[in-house]
Amino acid sequence: MIIVMKPSATQEEIKGVVNKVEQSGLHTNLSKGAEVTIVGVIGDKKKIANLEVNMLPGVEKTVRITEKYKLVSRNFHPEDTVVDVDGVKVGGKNIVVMAGPCSVENEQQLDEAAAAVRKHGAKFLRGGAFKPRTSPYDFQGLAEKGLKMMREAGDKYGLKVVTEIVDKDDIDLVSEYADLLQVGARNMQNFQLLKALGKQKKPVMLKRGLAATISEWLNAAEYILAGGNNNVILCERGIRTYETFTRNTLDLSAVVAVKELSHLPIIVDPSHGTGRWEMVQPMARAAIAAGCDGLIIEVHPHPDRALSDGDQSLTPNTFGRVMEDLRKIAGVMERTL
Amino acid sequence: MIIVMKPSATQEEIKGVVNKVEQSGLHTNLSKGAEVTIVGVIGDKKKIANLEVNMLPGVEKTVRITEKYKLVSRNFHPEDTVVDVDGVKVGGKNIVVMAGPCSVENEQQLDEAAAAVRKHGAKFLRGGAFKPRTSPYDFQGLAEKGLKMMREAGDKYGLKVVTEIVDKDDIDLVSEYADLLQVGARNMQNFQLLKALGKQKKPVMLKRGLAATISEWLNAAEYILAGGNNNVILCERGIRTYETFTRNTLDLSAVVAVKELSHLPIIVDPSHGTGRWEMVQPMARAAIAAGCDGLIIEVHPHPDRALSDGDQSLTPNTFGRVMEDLRKIAGVMERTL
Amino acid sequence: MIIVMKPSATQEEIKGVVNKVEQSGLHTNLSKGAEVTIVGVIGDKKKIANLEVNMLPGVEKTVRITEKYKLVSRNFHPEDTVVDVDGVKVGGKNIVVMAGPCSVENEQQLDEAAAAVRKHGAKFLRGGAFKPRTSPYDFQGLAEKGLKMMREAGDKYGLKVVTEIVDKDDIDLVSEYADLLQVGARNMQNFQLLKALGKQKKPVMLKRGLAATISEWLNAAEYILAGGNNNVILCERGIRTYETFTRNTLDLSAVVAVKELSHLPIIVDPSHGTGRWEMVQPMARAAIAAGCDGLIIEVHPHPDRALSDGDQSLTPNTFGRVMEDLRKIAGVMERTL
Amino acid sequence: MIIVMKPSATQEEIKGVVNKVEQSGLHTNLSKGAEVTIVGVIGDKKKIANLEVNMLPGVEKTVRITEKYKLVSRNFHPEDTVVDVDGVKVGGKNIVVMAGPCSVENEQQLDEAAAAVRKHGAKFLRGGAFKPRTSPYDFQGLAEKGLKMMREAGDKYGLKVVTEIVDKDDIDLVSEYADLLQVGARNMQNFQLLKALGKQKKPVMLKRGLAATISEWLNAAEYILAGGNNNVILCERGIRTYETFTRNTLDLSAVVAVKELSHLPIIVDPSHGTGRWEMVQPMARAAIAAGCDGLIIEVHPHPDRALSDGDQSLTPNTFGRVMEDLRKIAGVMERTL
Repeated sequence: MIIVMKPSATQEEIKGVVNKVEQSGLHTNLSKGAEVTIVGVIGDKKKIANLEVNMLPGVEKTVRITEKYKLVSRNFHPEDTVVDVDGVKVGGKNIVVMAGPCSVENEQQLDEAAAAVRKHGAKFLRGGAFKPRTSPYDFQGLAEKGLKMMREAGDKYGLKVVTEIVDKDDIDLVSEYADLLQVGARNMQNFQLLKALGKQKKPVMLKRGLAATISEWLNAAEYILAGGNNNVILCERGIRTYETFTRNTLDLSAVVAVKELSHLPIIVDPSHGTGRWEMVQPMARAAIAAGCDGLIIEVHPHPDRALSDGDQSLTPNTFGRVMEDLRKIAGVMERTL
Repeated sequence: MIIVMKPSATQEEIKGVVNKVEQSGLHTNLSKGAEVTIVGVIGDKKKIANLEVNMLPGVEKTVRITEKYKLVSRNFHPEDTVVDVDGVKVGGKNIVVMAGPCSVENEQQLDEAAAAVRKHGAKFLRGGAFKPRTSPYDFQGLAEKGLKMMREAGDKYGLKVVTEIVDKDDIDLVSEYADLLQVGARNMQNFQLLKALGKQKKPVMLKRGLAATISEWLNAAEYILAGGNNNVILCERGIRTYETFTRNTLDLSAVVAVKELSHLPIIVDPSHGTGRWEMVQPMARAAIAAGCDGLIIEVHPHPDRALSDGDQSLTPNTFGRVMEDLRKIAGVMERTL
Repeated sequence: MIIVMKPSATQEEIKGVVNKVEQSGLHTNLSKGAEVTIVGVIGDKKKIANLEVNMLPGVEKTVRITEKYKLVSRNFHPEDTVVDVDGVKVGGKNIVVMAGPCSVENEQQLDEAAAAVRKHGAKFLRGGAFKPRTSPYDFQGLAEKGLKMMREAGDKYGLKVVTEIVDKDDIDLVSEYADLLQVGARNMQNFQLLKALGKQKKPVMLKRGLAATISEWLNAAEYILAGGNNNVILCERGIRTYETFTRNTLDLSAVVAVKELSHLPIIVDPSHGTGRWEMVQPMARAAIAAGCDGLIIEVHPHPDRALSDGDQSLTPNTFGRVMEDLRKIAGVMERTL
Repeated sequence: MIIVMKPSATQEEIKGVVNKVEQSGLHTNLSKGAEVTIVGVIGDKKKIANLEVNMLPGVEKTVRITEKYKLVSRNFHPEDTVVDVDGVKVGGKNIVVMAGPCSVENEQQLDEAAAAVRKHGAKFLRGGAFKPRTSPYDFQGLAEKGLKMMREAGDKYGLKVVTEIVDKDDIDLVSEYADLLQVGARNMQNFQLLKALGKQKKPVMLKRGLAATISEWLNAAEYILAGGNNNVILCERGIRTYETFTRNTLDLSAVVAVKELSHLPIIVDPSHGTGRWEMVQPMARAAIAAGCDGLIIEVHPHPDRALSDGDQSLTPNTFGRVMEDLRKIAGVMERTL
């Protein structure tokens, strides 16, 4: 349940409502917008059913919420959330681009990639140091060595670092080097990892699971927010369907749905979402037109020699052309890229 | 197999190649582009394997095609096809909008809808007179009475008429009233209907099947072209996935794939593709950004009273705002709407 | 709505109820079981809502049905339907096997196949004369020539003939030769064909669509029953999923669901359902254990030379071993095969 | 690559081959069957390509394997693996039933459930103490308290204990109480958990992911075997499709596929696989007929009061009838249950 306060409600009145709710053995979550304050109520259903607050001073109305997620719901928090990643804002008027190789392979590769993505306007360097791979015999990433290279390249070129975390035991290690912690599709419902990420401070990018519904995805985000970390960015990366021409089916309607259901920023991954580099440009354009807040794109100095995902990586030159093209669409959407 | 002629090839040389092929018991299909002519070869695989034409004068090279469709393939016909629907061109620089109610219900409803869609820039009036419905007890459409209303409204407001055909026996009847014959998703592999449509002259709009692969869809179009009718427009309308928030999952990567694989124009149906009117605007924008050649949108003067698909229909006013918004994206894509 | 009569209800009382319903502008459908008679009510929803029959003599109770299909519903007709195909009963205690090649290719192939399937206990010869193929350039079947061969082989070996019909114009032609008319997966929602099959007398086997829900499938069957033909056999043939190891995913839970929701007999096609001949035996066993009423299995004298579906066809010898194995499971299920 | 030794190969010869392989910088895995020994070769592809062992004494032939999984492959290990869970054998001639509630709720519930499942012939007690739930506000399980109850009930009734593990940090804790560690569908590609389970001794039951291909599933099992733990049991539990009548689509063809591709035992979960208790009996029958090695079934003394999955749980009485029925099918399959 959420309690919508009147625009005229005083601090005293809000405090009164919160006290009343907590005395009933329930928890509250405050969301203060420019005009109204909303008190979210979490806890035992029966206690919620018996809660009487409509008569308290300052209360406009109460709204029952049928979806299980609360904190990520736009009903709870009507205004768009802007996540601040060490100074770079995700959400709001900007469209943020994260770019770089699928896997960190060596210093030269990463340096070339970082230089290129910076030059063409990306704000984040992406790259995997811990790679969750289908087969145990595939390249598993450079681990801490890779993280260090990411940080150095990031610092050298003024880029924020985003990288995947696959184990809650690595949170301290990865946090030492990265600015944004990515949860991959295969771990979207690794609830132990989500809970641990809820209890720390770094912002988190949560990719949609391989075959997750939008509702399951928002509930997964709820695990992080429920732990106390509100800095969550969602990332649509294609879903599994019967179609085999593309690696996944990029579901841009999910961008629109998330914007309706939630206040969290959402970015799109057209590289994994299609699995084909020629499709990255038109699908990135479409993602911006659908209303996303950013893009994550694979760029590799030599895609033909990549240890993973070469088919879906752009060369630095192509990336440059893509960015130029995307700026035009961003302009029409009254956003800056 | 396709035979690519040299830019300098003469008519004589082209004729020579065609004769050689046909003397081998195979069929040919000529595609003359601005620069080169391509001779498509259709028929028995073994005969094709034994065909020797590389040495003939004027031949640049031969290309084996592994996909079963030929005439719809961009390899066969490298330049974009523009379908002329009684003077309105689909494909090329224009983005064409088809709009109107799901079902024709009565004269007033249709007149209001037609006036509105014309006012806001649609070039086609859409509306169903024969409705293929899941249940035999659902409203099945007004049949010829509905077709007549469509024609009258189309003529009154200067709109082309597009409507669904569900039975090959109705081709003459529907052709009397409509300018563009629509094959619905459920009939995408109704090969008898496709063959019959291949033998007549009206342009055809072929919707993608509920769970059709891109390859199956292009092969279905091939049935129509193989019959002699090259005027085919494809329409992406969402595919069936596990996600239930949207009615279907609109697969915009199919637009990009079709543009790569085929020369046929492709339009997008964001109304059926999402099943939610609030999603029509952002997904229509995204479709244009992905590179589609047009849109088909449900507009109803009173969606709350619609006999079918009320949830996904726009009001005339909303349609007006959507069209204004779409013009901006079209402009960036250097296309006119 | 359905009206359940008391076990003690007289013919007079039943007639009274029927008259009352029909005077209200609604239609009735009578289903007389061993103990009770059920009166199905079809027509305008508002009229049904206003119908008052609970007080009439002989009425036990009325039940509202939320599913759109009525005549195929087990609520309407609680007892299992047994379809009589020219003397061979499908449904009830028997498990019926239909076997033969995917396509009729020539007389020798068909004769060998028919001799083998008869020898090992099949009751029906299956074989396609009209083949709906993804590509227009694939083998399309022998048409009437193939039908004649089917009839001759059927008569020679005492087998009923089942074959696919793809065009309502062919009903008379196919009916001349076949005992059971098959509607293929691609035509499951070809409503014109279904309506036409509802108006004729031959029994119909309706395959589930490539990606049809169980509800859509039963609604498709409803089109045939609503036309007046109650002799419908359903056939589960696998659905389209993301898995690529098998050609389709054979959904045996659909057998259980159909038995719960409907009174119609249901058979299973493990050949198309898996696309792999080695899987036919275990999946056929499983289908019987799940409760199906029959099987349709591809048998070809020389699968390696088959014009279609060679990978999923059994040799006559293997078919013999499979049948022996299936008889054991049938026995445990207290059914005869 | 695998090296198949001659039936007559001596220990010396086998050792010679192993040495040769390892001197080339590759790893080996020995599989000794009743008749032949197979040497699996793992490592760098180029080194494998250059390996020359065909001429060595005792070598019958070498076989290239295209699938990435090796140790789980039937090519590597042709004979069925039987996993010994503290004296109860899974695989081979027995069909093992695991039964109990979805979640451990309290002592009485568990005791009643354990008594019932033992009485009717189950060998394992199932029950969740750590529950991975879609929403953070759903019941998350009793943790160690639940594990203790499981062990006590297991010991009291002579049942092995199987329970889900969701965190690698819990391995020691869960191993103290459980005999078989279950990896749930959402964690199938939680590679950190899989790697940790590979390094310990308890047998593992690996459920198929929500939308995992058979190949991904076998590769996930490979992670555990590659770590040194060969005691892996697979569990098919339904896949995600567009169908909504059932909770998941139980893919019994996966049982057949796994038996062909791998030597690992496979059991089936008809409770989660269908989500409907009425479907458990027929689908369990079908699973045995398809060739599975066991079943895991939800049984709750009072399904209407269950904290989770009440709709798909059997009462003790129904479970008794189901087991009786399953014994008949098991008998025909020449297996004991």
